[in-house]
Amino acid sequence: YKYQCTSSILVSVLFQYSLGLNWPTFYVWVQQVDGVWPLPQQLDQSADRNSLSPQRFSFTYGRDSAAQTGCSVLDAAFKRYFSIIFPDFTKGSAMLTTLYSCFVVADNLSVSEGQAVLRSVTVWGALRGLESFSQLVYQDDYGSYFINKTEIVDFPRFAFRGLLLDTSRHYLPLHAILKTLDAMAYSKFNVFHWHIVDDPSFPYQSRTFPDLSNKGAFHPFTHVYTQSDVMRVIEHARMRGIRVIPEFDSPGHTQSWGKGQPNLLTPCYKGDVPSGSFGPVDPTVDTTYKFMESLLKEVKFVFPDSYVHLGGDEVSFACWQSNPNVRTFMEKMGFGKDFTKLESFYMERTSIVWQDVFDYHERIPQDTVLEIWKGETYQAELSRMTKAGHRVLLSAPWYINHISYGQDWRNSYAVQPQNFSGTEEQKKLVIGGEVAMWGEYVDATNLNPRLWPRACAAAERLWSDEEKTLNADLAFPRLEKFRCELLRRGIQAEPLFVGHCKHEYDGL
Amino acid sequence: YKYQCTSSILVSVLFQYSLGLNWPTFYVWVQQVDGVWPLPQQLDQSADRNSLSPQRFSFTYGRDSAAQTGCSVLDAAFKRYFSIIFPDFTKGSAMLTTLYSCFVVADNLSVSEGQAVLRSVTVWGALRGLESFSQLVYQDDYGSYFINKTEIVDFPRFAFRGLLLDTSRHYLPLHAILKTLDAMAYSKFNVFHWHIVDDPSFPYQSRTFPDLSNKGAFHPFTHVYTQSDVMRVIEHARMRGIRVIPEFDSPGHTQSWGKGQPNLLTPCYKGDVPSGSFGPVDPTVDTTYKFMESLLKEVKFVFPDSYVHLGGDEVSFACWQSNPNVRTFMEKMGFGKDFTKLESFYMERTSIVWQDVFDYHERIPQDTVLEIWKGETYQAELSRMTKAGHRVLLSAPWYINHISYGQDWRNSYAVQPQNFSGTEEQKKLVIGGEVAMWGEYVDATNLNPRLWPRACAAAERLWSDEEKTLNADLAFPRLEKFRCELLRRGIQAEPLFVGHCKHEYDGL
Repeated sequence: YKYQCTSSILVSVLFQYSLGLNWPTFYVWVQQVDGVWPLPQQLDQSADRNSLSPQRFSFTYGRDSAAQTGCSVLDAAFKRYFSIIFPDFTKGSAMLTTLYSCFVVADNLSVSEGQAVLRSVTVWGALRGLESFSQLVYQDDYGSYFINKTEIVDFPRFAFRGLLLDTSRHYLPLHAILKTLDAMAYSKFNVFHWHIVDDPSFPYQSRTFPDLSNKGAFHPFTHVYTQSDVMRVIEHARMRGIRVIPEFDSPGHTQSWGKGQPNLLTPCYKGDVPSGSFGPVDPTVDTTYKFMESLLKEVKFVFPDSYVHLGGDEVSFACWQSNPNVRTFMEKMGFGKDFTKLESFYMERTSIVWQDVFDYHERIPQDTVLEIWKGETYQAELSRMTKAGHRVLLSAPWYINHISYGQDWRNSYAVQPQNFSGTEEQKKLVIGGEVAMWGEYVDATNLNPRLWPRACAAAERLWSDEEKTLNADLAFPRLEKFRCELLRRGIQAEPLFVGHCKHEYDGL
Repeated sequence: YKYQCTSSILVSVLFQYSLGLNWPTFYVWVQQVDGVWPLPQQLDQSADRNSLSPQRFSFTYGRDSAAQTGCSVLDAAFKRYFSIIFPDFTKGSAMLTTLYSCFVVADNLSVSEGQAVLRSVTVWGALRGLESFSQLVYQDDYGSYFINKTEIVDFPRFAFRGLLLDTSRHYLPLHAILKTLDAMAYSKFNVFHWHIVDDPSFPYQSRTFPDLSNKGAFHPFTHVYTQSDVMRVIEHARMRGIRVIPEFDSPGHTQSWGKGQPNLLTPCYKGDVPSGSFGPVDPTVDTTYKFMESLLKEVKFVFPDSYVHLGGDEVSFACWQSNPNVRTFMEKMGFGKDFTKLESFYMERTSIVWQDVFDYHERIPQDTVLEIWKGETYQAELSRMTKAGHRVLLSAPWYINHISYGQDWRNSYAVQPQNFSGTEEQKKLVIGGEVAMWGEYVDATNLNPRLWPRACAAAERLWSDEEKTLNADLAFPRLEKFRCELLRRGIQAEPLFVGHCKHEYDGL
């Protein structure tokens, strides 16, 4: 990342507001459901409350804060959160920029009379604090805003809190992706894993190889992501503290690539003659590597994140085996009949890859992060892969494209990413996890209600203290409240169970 | 129903359009996926196609048609379908009303050069024919409209093709209901079963008993259906040939009723003292019957349909049993300890009821329609209830609020409503079926993608010839096309599998 605000600064933000002294005579005490989702590491809340007036509310950088007006990530976040906190008063948000001034402050989120202070060592931490602050504010039946006296000390349990969208099995319009990024920020996810291309379609419009999407997308104009679309996604994500890791899965899952790039895929044979169908990328010819090098050079330029996910999963060896040229190559290389060696030969890069790469390879670079997706054995895999010294990402139990009747968020919530046999050192190699929304049965029509609030369960598991969040029944009312808050913010989050929200989804 | 156009008339409608003679030179033949959903009884389509010009297209009543301009149901349908058929040309629809004229015609939908003729003995049949016609029109990549020469003879297999929405477990905003009615008409459903009240909330704003919703709705203003809302639903449905059958389920499922109507529910006892909780409606006191009579009098006035669904399902006897007054009443009536007799005593009306009423009652009026909802034994129930001479509705296998991963529409499609042991006479007593979308986990955020296109499977089973629609694989491409058509019409219908539609849901 190239931050506009460097990541080692101390950020301090003041939230100033007037004290609400003149209570209406028909005043009714509002019971606030206590809750921030995901649960902060430490949260102390008192019943003392302050009223907040949108007119008198401002965000201000602390005087000794290294971040000051001009830090675009926070400047924009102040505007955004003003509108989120005071939805009835969005006009005022424009006004705010003129109110910035400097104040001295000294670490965390502290809300007390007339003032709240947020301290953070990074801009990204400040974003998370703003989110928590926004969840503390509530309204009574008369529309007045309140916040209780609160102390929060917070940090994430895992550094990598990802969500995967699949834009190949179905095309997702740009705004559906942007909306998902919004909701991710509300749940404190920080990595968008963009499974952008796969067998069914190639919607990424490459500068170097425009035919990939011209011929490989569902439609060359209406079902593609232009360079400008990709930029918007990256910038929208960055402003919300979210990294974008693109996945260009190969050598399998590449049927759509073959349409715009001749001679890339392995021609499958039936006996001695080509069958007309194609298999994985052909790893035996130089043109493949030249092509991949050019494409990945472009991808690494377009996507600033230091990681590119290179897939490497579910490679079918049958087609390779059928092809006489591949068999000749295998002999020449001394691979015998072991096609995993051929895949190894192909997959030599520093990157995140799916677990299959580890399964096939005896030696892969130590700094390759492995993502565990095979469901049944994930605890054994965690153990095995961390023992080999690899950092791992857990995704297997969070394939939430799989649905079932009822409250299946509880299954996601019950996942214990560090509960496997291994040393403390091994446990530390679990750098996080990822919710996956694969696209076989999902497009813009049902993406949001399938993601939210179901993904929130994993979000809390990845952020919060495990000991404090063991009980799903205790989490339930807090998650219900958070789901209503998502609705209020325009996220089409489905209900957890019978009930209602003050602001229902209007669907218009 | 009080039709504006009587139901015994002969309707004939002409669709006139210019012949497309001047093909563009870059003309490309468009392969039309043949399909109307649900499948008509007879459909003959040729490869001959005509182009349609929105400017030169009009709907016209036939000269000897009993229905003429002024038949509001059809006048409105002409406007609606013009916009559906020509989405890029909606301004023209206003123009149409001036183009009506009279033409002689003689039964069915026949599309040939320059003219299409629709004949029907009822206005409602004409509506179905218009829907089929609209599904025959297609566009090429240049936006030109075409229709192939087609002959259709059509009628529904079952008279009752229902869909249930539950507005008590979650409140559904008015427009969500109206939108559902639109989509129902596209699939040729003709009964909206409005499960309007239940335990969790009482959103129906009664004229006679306003406290029922004032105290029993989730919110007395934002989460209620006013009289005017109910009128709009009924009228919107009527214009689309859909009946509205309200359900006021009692004596169980009435917790929310008790909030606004004191002394209606049975106080439960713990030993000799009231426990503070309440059970089903108290069937032992006169006030209950007076109240129910007044409420149902209002309901039957407000909802013009000849049927009211009175529920009668899942009555818990434990609370009745705990109550000493109820026990005294049972003795007095000579019911002994048989609480089913007490429920029988309560449920004596001509109506649709859930199957439980049959299970408990030795004798219920012959003209009561029974709705079968218990999943596991529905074929045995069909046999047993039709043997007793009752008309039945099948709903058990179509509880599509239950979801599972993958293409679960295939389960709905495989249902065979008349496949049970019984005589031909018994089979005829199956008057139809009903898709149920219960509200435990459903509100406006996820209603549409859960309903559509999954409900379409039952729609075809209820409309089409069983022999011609046995194979779900053959139905798949036609259903995919219909799902894209639903998207184009603004219905948030979820995908069946990997792929794309020309017009994706924009989600905005």
